[in-house]
Amino acid sequence: MQVELDRRRPGQSRITTPRKETDTCKILSGTHEGMTTGTPIHVFVPNTDQRGGDYSEMAKAYRPSHADATYDFKYGVRAVQGGGRSSARETIGRVAAGALAKKILKLKSGVEILAFVSKVYQVVLPEDAVDYETVTMEQIESNIVRCPDPEYAEKMIAAIDKVRVRGDSIGGVVTCIARNVPRGIGSPVFDKLEAELAKAMLSLPASKGFEIGSGFAGTDLTGSEHNDEFYMDEAGNVRTQTNRSGGVQGGISNGEIIYFKVAFKPTATIGKKQNTVSREHQDVELLARGRHDPCVVPRAVPMVESMAALVLMDQLMAHIAQCEMFPLNLALQEPIGSASSASELAPNLS
Amino acid sequence: MQVELDRRRPGQSRITTPRKETDTCKILSGTHEGMTTGTPIHVFVPNTDQRGGDYSEMAKAYRPSHADATYDFKYGVRAVQGGGRSSARETIGRVAAGALAKKILKLKSGVEILAFVSKVYQVVLPEDAVDYETVTMEQIESNIVRCPDPEYAEKMIAAIDKVRVRGDSIGGVVTCIARNVPRGIGSPVFDKLEAELAKAMLSLPASKGFEIGSGFAGTDLTGSEHNDEFYMDEAGNVRTQTNRSGGVQGGISNGEIIYFKVAFKPTATIGKKQNTVSREHQDVELLARGRHDPCVVPRAVPMVESMAALVLMDQLMAHIAQCEMFPLNLALQEPIGSASSASELAPNLS
Amino acid sequence: MQVELDRRRPGQSRITTPRKETDTCKILSGTHEGMTTGTPIHVFVPNTDQRGGDYSEMAKAYRPSHADATYDFKYGVRAVQGGGRSSARETIGRVAAGALAKKILKLKSGVEILAFVSKVYQVVLPEDAVDYETVTMEQIESNIVRCPDPEYAEKMIAAIDKVRVRGDSIGGVVTCIARNVPRGIGSPVFDKLEAELAKAMLSLPASKGFEIGSGFAGTDLTGSEHNDEFYMDEAGNVRTQTNRSGGVQGGISNGEIIYFKVAFKPTATIGKKQNTVSREHQDVELLARGRHDPCVVPRAVPMVESMAALVLMDQLMAHIAQCEMFPLNLALQEPIGSASSASELAPNLS
Amino acid sequence: MQVELDRRRPGQSRITTPRKETDTCKILSGTHEGMTTGTPIHVFVPNTDQRGGDYSEMAKAYRPSHADATYDFKYGVRAVQGGGRSSARETIGRVAAGALAKKILKLKSGVEILAFVSKVYQVVLPEDAVDYETVTMEQIESNIVRCPDPEYAEKMIAAIDKVRVRGDSIGGVVTCIARNVPRGIGSPVFDKLEAELAKAMLSLPASKGFEIGSGFAGTDLTGSEHNDEFYMDEAGNVRTQTNRSGGVQGGISNGEIIYFKVAFKPTATIGKKQNTVSREHQDVELLARGRHDPCVVPRAVPMVESMAALVLMDQLMAHIAQCEMFPLNLALQEPIGSASSASELAPNLS
Repeated sequence: MQVELDRRRPGQSRITTPRKETDTCKILSGTHEGMTTGTPIHVFVPNTDQRGGDYSEMAKAYRPSHADATYDFKYGVRAVQGGGRSSARETIGRVAAGALAKKILKLKSGVEILAFVSKVYQVVLPEDAVDYETVTMEQIESNIVRCPDPEYAEKMIAAIDKVRVRGDSIGGVVTCIARNVPRGIGSPVFDKLEAELAKAMLSLPASKGFEIGSGFAGTDLTGSEHNDEFYMDEAGNVRTQTNRSGGVQGGISNGEIIYFKVAFKPTATIGKKQNTVSREHQDVELLARGRHDPCVVPRAVPMVESMAALVLMDQLMAHIAQCEMFPLNLALQEPIGSASSASELAPNLS
Repeated sequence: MQVELDRRRPGQSRITTPRKETDTCKILSGTHEGMTTGTPIHVFVPNTDQRGGDYSEMAKAYRPSHADATYDFKYGVRAVQGGGRSSARETIGRVAAGALAKKILKLKSGVEILAFVSKVYQVVLPEDAVDYETVTMEQIESNIVRCPDPEYAEKMIAAIDKVRVRGDSIGGVVTCIARNVPRGIGSPVFDKLEAELAKAMLSLPASKGFEIGSGFAGTDLTGSEHNDEFYMDEAGNVRTQTNRSGGVQGGISNGEIIYFKVAFKPTATIGKKQNTVSREHQDVELLARGRHDPCVVPRAVPMVESMAALVLMDQLMAHIAQCEMFPLNLALQEPIGSASSASELAPNLS
Repeated sequence: MQVELDRRRPGQSRITTPRKETDTCKILSGTHEGMTTGTPIHVFVPNTDQRGGDYSEMAKAYRPSHADATYDFKYGVRAVQGGGRSSARETIGRVAAGALAKKILKLKSGVEILAFVSKVYQVVLPEDAVDYETVTMEQIESNIVRCPDPEYAEKMIAAIDKVRVRGDSIGGVVTCIARNVPRGIGSPVFDKLEAELAKAMLSLPASKGFEIGSGFAGTDLTGSEHNDEFYMDEAGNVRTQTNRSGGVQGGISNGEIIYFKVAFKPTATIGKKQNTVSREHQDVELLARGRHDPCVVPRAVPMVESMAALVLMDQLMAHIAQCEMFPLNLALQEPIGSASSASELAPNLS
Repeated sequence: MQVELDRRRPGQSRITTPRKETDTCKILSGTHEGMTTGTPIHVFVPNTDQRGGDYSEMAKAYRPSHADATYDFKYGVRAVQGGGRSSARETIGRVAAGALAKKILKLKSGVEILAFVSKVYQVVLPEDAVDYETVTMEQIESNIVRCPDPEYAEKMIAAIDKVRVRGDSIGGVVTCIARNVPRGIGSPVFDKLEAELAKAMLSLPASKGFEIGSGFAGTDLTGSEHNDEFYMDEAGNVRTQTNRSGGVQGGISNGEIIYFKVAFKPTATIGKKQNTVSREHQDVELLARGRHDPCVVPRAVPMVESMAALVLMDQLMAHIAQCEMFPLNLALQEPIGSASSASELAPNLS
């Protein structure tokens, strides 16, 4: 869990916010002697580098394109220090929970979830620069921008450095892949797997777009060009020759690699003077102080992975409940007066 | 409701599937003498032009990029006639419910939801061709492809005709706008307004992408270019000079026009021979018969509007429950022994 | 399903409402060639013996202790014919769904759910008259009041006949048992198994009370008298000597028989003159016509069983999703390139 | 909030567990300068008097009728100290949240929720000893057992003292009333108000029964005796002459006082030797140490009130969202270009 939190924390490199948070997590409940107990797990991550003073201007005026205005519209209050719930600190919980989901998915089904930066501002990683079958966490983590291609990583870092020094910000795109997802996961109508992923990604701060498989670019093809033809592989499995579907067909996984992209806008809080209005409805100028990310995408990588893991974990659980009751038949069908039922339902007992 | 269903039904024009369904809806329960009764409304829409024979080849082999394979993976059964739940007929329910939601939203809050086709295959409607403030339902419905610009509508229809005659298919993009949405609607963390919209749109058949406001293109701008500056308008309201946010900031509406785009891939079922596999795991060739849409986007327009209306209706109800209890104070706080409470809680009584 | 609906239908005997409904069910969707398809199952049960004229008086005045007044308070409308959603006809859907749940529970886990009438008005079936281990459906269905003890059945029928002829009504108690429920089913805090059962039972029309295990009578014992001591049975299982817990401890099943009781008040609609008020707020007298049950409990028996089955089915699915992922390990963890994964995830394929 | 927690805390009197916990609550998030911010409110209540040693015997053997066995069956782990989630400490969260709900209900709708002890072991408070219209919190809190009748309070305390000194335990019944609940609150089918209350009460530790209004005793009456006749009161409201319905008809409140009873079994953990089995499946004897309540009902009073408040709060919010959109019409229907809309949607702004 701490490893994942460290990938998310502020101050991890020169291209993230200079705010220094260790984001050290402490588990207050839910585990006992190294095992989960079935109780909710309480993870506590205190702030260590908070400077309230930075927020004095922002307390008076709404930051353009930031959530503080709409919060005030909705709730009629402002808790401006650190941005309240619209602060990216809110994503600590997502990453902590995602770390557990990733571990269970890996252990139970061999699922591997990896995200990386595929665009920063106008620097676009070419589609063929990364092989979704083989790309590794090591390659992604080999540089501070989290792009598995070293050459493009350099260009992206340079782009961030350029806006960073003048107090401006930029956005980008994170690509996420999930390998070894069993086929059959997902739902056919409202809760399609791609719908759940889309919701999860658009719930991340600063995200403005989601596309799975061929996405928006798929509209440039005809059906005969776009369709993924099926074939039988050597091991006797139904596979597809191409994967424009992105691993899902009609809301349900087909066993191919799931991949999707998420667009993140440039950070709203910038170190440049902007026109805005105050809570008292006066036109004012705002120069935000605080210490903010020049580009959110390197830190968004673990957030995207975590949300993907949480969605897949939920969907896997739902799938097991709905469609995999059969193999449990033996364990469950026997009345209590049978030794096998006792040991199988509570295997740790014996 | 019938008006909306007619916008969705097959056979409405030469560029949709030639299957002739009247999609006549019949309300079986939930209304009495022209009023809803609080009971679930049962809308019954029977099939009238079903030809089971068309599906004989498809019963044996999986259609590439179609949901029938993943359905079989998940449920171990196939109900191939008409595509089962992965048929676009499933969207009738969405459009019927959406018709009600649109009516309530319009009546209670003046909300107007309009969608139109902004891309068909490689024909792209320019951003400045449509004014989101003024575009009307009449303009959208003035042609069979549902693009408010007559010139581009012609080009789009021509593109569809071209693939239609050779049995191929194409996709496109639907843009949706919602005007007069009160500010403060939405949720700050997991259930952000844009997240709910993204889920709703990705739950539509054939959709592969969603972007709100500046979307993926927003990553080409810096924060100082992208931010929407606030100002006070003449009526004393907090407004934004630009609207790259697409009407939402941090999950909550800001009172500006909400707009988003949805990408739809080319229809999977085509009248061209494709390689695939059979349920018995044999490599086979498939030539689908059936009668399918050469391009789904004209019929997707009412689906997108309907899903947007359902999301906004849900969020408006949640907002009222959470944040608008105050004005109800008088109606609810009085004990039963007061005439005003009786009449206000059940206004139809007197 | 029809068998269960016949146990619920009006007009089944002289002690139920004389309204003659065959309650013939027709499945409109969700099955294909005798198998469920994973699609929602649409069961259609039309009314056949509706006499609107019976409701003319009731349309003007509120029936004492009936839902029609509160409906009007809440929704401001009245759909009085047949009682709208507060009619017992609403329970058809519960019984139809419960029939499926009972079948799956029996098939997958050997769970048997049986309910019977244990009190009618002041006729109380003694606790020791029925052996929860051995009582059968045949015994319960051997008489029209659904009490497995023939002697008490006669007394109960006599009690109903007595009020029936003078247009009055009486209530009673239904006892329900569930045998062979695997241990470990349920949830530890808010969604305790007994809590879910209580909600399900109090959602039935006319129910006013629920108790599980020793219930209210358990408050007459001390802890040392009440506690169920554990012992090891011959088959090596942890069992309890007594079962005052009613098969649940702290929200989770312990493998013993689950049993609970539900109190049903006398039917509100009676054929006797009562004082009430009209919608126009005038004090009036009401003599209800309609044809109503003199005692609802014989028909409540399949309703109670059905709701119990739905709760247990839900909880079993939740349990499998949360705690039984382990045995699925092999089926799910293998990547798509393995034959075993393909066949196990979609067993019907080969 | 602290006042309510003090009513629940251990060690408050000689008839509760002698464990000394101050249960001092500390709010870690969700408020700012005395106002809630819309963010989840984190209430932290640390343990101060925990003696792990007390639990050494219990760690080896299952306590009869306690949740520790079923927890182990379900999760395969034991976290025995303090009982884990099956400890009554879990109810701190319910009481803290309930304190807020009670405050909002009182403020917005004048709702008053009061619970009191109406039975301890075989000491039964007569029905006519308490007037539901006038009973006060002061009367209830005037003695340590929380029975508003001083004479019966003495008898109840004596009964508890008697079992306390010999290490045994007893249970009882808590009655709860809610005054001034607006009519129209609740739902007509599955989520009836009484169903939600039943679930909430059966989710409390040690509860075994729930009855609303006439409850089980109502089955001793005929319909003509049981029905609550309507009349018009002097203020022009529809009222009922009697209240055997307990304030609900068909799942929806009718404006009369809501009242219900909850049965609590004797505390499972007792200071007497009992037969049981160990985790290793050996028959053993257990003499629990720990410090446990001789009778849980005095401390259950605030728990029952809190759960009732949470249910009513939820249902009131749902009612507002579903049925009270009308009065919000003016506030919400105006487009953003109107001053009234701005100020009404965010009243704290101006």
